Amino acid sequence: VTGSKGRPAGVQAARQRVAPGGTQEGLRRHNLGTLLAHLHLAGPLSRAELTARMGLNRSTIAGLVSELAALDAVREERPAGVQASAGRPSLVVQPRSDTVQAVAADVGVRQVTVALAGLGGDVVTRRQRQVTEPTPEAVAELLASLVRTLLSDPAAGRHIVGAGVSIPGIVRQRDGCVRFAPNLGWTDAPFGELVQRRLEGMRVHVGNDADLGALAEYRRGAARGVDNVVFISCEVGVGGGLILDGRSLRGAGGYAGELGHMTVRPGGRPCRCGARGCWETEVGAAAIAQALGMPDASMDDLVAAVRSAPGGRGSALAEIAGWVGVGVANVVNLVNPQLVILGGLLEDVFVAAETSVRASLSAAALSAPAEQLRLQVPELGADTVLAGAAELAWEDLLADPAGVLRRPGHRVSDPPRT
Amino acid sequence: VTGSKGRPAGVQAARQRVAPGGTQEGLRRHNLGTLLAHLHLAGPLSRAELTARMGLNRSTIAGLVSELAALDAVREERPAGVQASAGRPSLVVQPRSDTVQAVAADVGVRQVTVALAGLGGDVVTRRQRQVTEPTPEAVAELLASLVRTLLSDPAAGRHIVGAGVSIPGIVRQRDGCVRFAPNLGWTDAPFGELVQRRLEGMRVHVGNDADLGALAEYRRGAARGVDNVVFISCEVGVGGGLILDGRSLRGAGGYAGELGHMTVRPGGRPCRCGARGCWETEVGAAAIAQALGMPDASMDDLVAAVRSAPGGRGSALAEIAGWVGVGVANVVNLVNPQLVILGGLLEDVFVAAETSVRASLSAAALSAPAEQLRLQVPELGADTVLAGAAELAWEDLLADPAGVLRRPGHRVSDPPRT
Repeated sequence: VTGSKGRPAGVQAARQRVAPGGTQEGLRRHNLGTLLAHLHLAGPLSRAELTARMGLNRSTIAGLVSELAALDAVREERPAGVQASAGRPSLVVQPRSDTVQAVAADVGVRQVTVALAGLGGDVVTRRQRQVTEPTPEAVAELLASLVRTLLSDPAAGRHIVGAGVSIPGIVRQRDGCVRFAPNLGWTDAPFGELVQRRLEGMRVHVGNDADLGALAEYRRGAARGVDNVVFISCEVGVGGGLILDGRSLRGAGGYAGELGHMTVRPGGRPCRCGARGCWETEVGAAAIAQALGMPDASMDDLVAAVRSAPGGRGSALAEIAGWVGVGVANVVNLVNPQLVILGGLLEDVFVAAETSVRASLSAAALSAPAEQLRLQVPELGADTVLAGAAELAWEDLLADPAGVLRRPGHRVSDPPRT
Repeated sequence: VTGSKGRPAGVQAARQRVAPGGTQEGLRRHNLGTLLAHLHLAGPLSRAELTARMGLNRSTIAGLVSELAALDAVREERPAGVQASAGRPSLVVQPRSDTVQAVAADVGVRQVTVALAGLGGDVVTRRQRQVTEPTPEAVAELLASLVRTLLSDPAAGRHIVGAGVSIPGIVRQRDGCVRFAPNLGWTDAPFGELVQRRLEGMRVHVGNDADLGALAEYRRGAARGVDNVVFISCEVGVGGGLILDGRSLRGAGGYAGELGHMTVRPGGRPCRCGARGCWETEVGAAAIAQALGMPDASMDDLVAAVRSAPGGRGSALAEIAGWVGVGVANVVNLVNPQLVILGGLLEDVFVAAETSVRASLSAAALSAPAEQLRLQVPELGADTVLAGAAELAWEDLLADPAGVLRRPGHRVSDPPRT
């Protein structure tokens, strides 16, 4: 089987696709990062537990722990809650949330929330401010000033490994350009650069809110240990994040997961994206508000109305729920997930009209993938997206702990710009 | 950010998701497999080229090449076409298609094709036979007897590393059970076991035809070097295979890629899967035949008719093409591929009515992912699926060359059962 060109098929491919060879140094880096990831996700573990989980011998584990301790990333101590009198309990290796921290930011339509999260996941300190001027420049400045405030907090750590920023829109992975964020009114806004310029020395990563919600539920919420997960969010519009084979799906440019814009009803209602009959036009906030006869309701009123509305057969919510099932079935047939998490307004629709969601889902989904599917609501609550932004910021560290922690310039010490 | 249960969040997750630590032995295995994969995909390479591609030093490469040579997997020789008189040309490392081979099988509705493919991808020998009795048992026996015939061919190699089998249906990855293959009339047929029982000592992997088509185009065809690819096949029904971030998407059970069963027209025509308004009912063979006014045509006649039909605006094909665009847009919005390959009848529709495909695609797709998209037809032709089945069979070898080649019992020497 060879290609049609003169050169043997696969030459170009092999260059790009086949992994490079591994080196001793790469192995060490991988093991340091893996050990730290275990601690970051599981919390304190004894060396014996680490040895078992990593499948390495005790002396290798000891060497890795020493190196991470020298980098201020871990500390060995007596487990919390164990009495000093109980003999000599073995020490546990603890991820240091006091020294190693990441910036997490959630840009919403009405407010910006910024937090310092410690290694291990706990939020150390946080700030929230209303958005008064929703331009990319003003929001970037607001975000950066909140970060500066947090970094002057006594609880701020010595090593700030980077910043993860969530945006309710389609984000180009390469540079954090916001291609389209209808609720913010942004198109092609170079938001990543605007923030990066204000936080010199800090690595800034920008992601889509639903992608980060998926990541958070996968690492710390309803999808722990589940390797094929679809997270569906619904605030004004409908967004999605996919974890496939244990990795965040980003696609060619970082735009993957826009399941709100699957066409499910050709020639249907116009969508904010310019197309017609998108799934969002049948199950988004506007469709729900219209179905409940309250087209001008605030989001809070709408949530309350969905929660108290009847969801039985023939109800307005049941019809919405039927469309929810159609869209979920499309995703199930396409990617065969074990778990679909329905968030935001769709969580409320699901709780109120679960029978209708399931009925239309099983009518439209193939039985083989459908029988593997669980439907669930998010576990992390209001902080899901913020937690996901933190996980985005941790990725560099967990890929190369020593490289990141030895890098200078994580501390933003510039005076605020005016 | 911690979970709601008593134990810290992520404990279970960390067990399953965080990679184990790497060992010296694992590193060696990875490097052996990577080097062999370079040769398998690119063909003969000099040690200097391997050194550059792998990013390892010359002595490490020399050691890996020696080990693979001792395993009969490679041989060093003068490059083909270089005159002996041209000084002393440096040797190239050649993958040995004469000793190391895989079985590839393509089960169709009308015939079974079986081939021996050599390391590097060339087909060494092949056989095809008509299916007279389309039960799972009879097809498994037919397939196994063809394999036995091939293995008694003088060109058969010493090491047969496994078998890859393509099925036009939904296949459970774990055990090769065919959950649903409407064209074969099979439901829950334990085909993998039926074949495995007849080919003792050989590792048998069964896959879906569109998934394997995607794999073949990715490794050796139109999608070389492209890491996010959707391959869409259309014979009777419409199937799909997805390569995402450089890996075949299988999903929870191996069922991913059933894009023919996305609902695109709720309440539309009934589909063979039991649902209504699936994409397949709008763009599959039956829909095309109906649109062209030849509902009882054979597949060959249908292909000829599509190729000669007018595809301009307002034509019957243009309407089909419009639905093609809608379905492709859904996939584009969901997974943001660089490349969608339209195969089978959809290749002919695309060639005849490209303008209509593109118009409806750009109406329904978001502009950010759409601008990254290329549409293309397959490059490998009639043998695509067979080539993909071979690639499936090679996976074990490329993950652990020494482990597979030192394993006994690859040669099927049992007498045929009657």
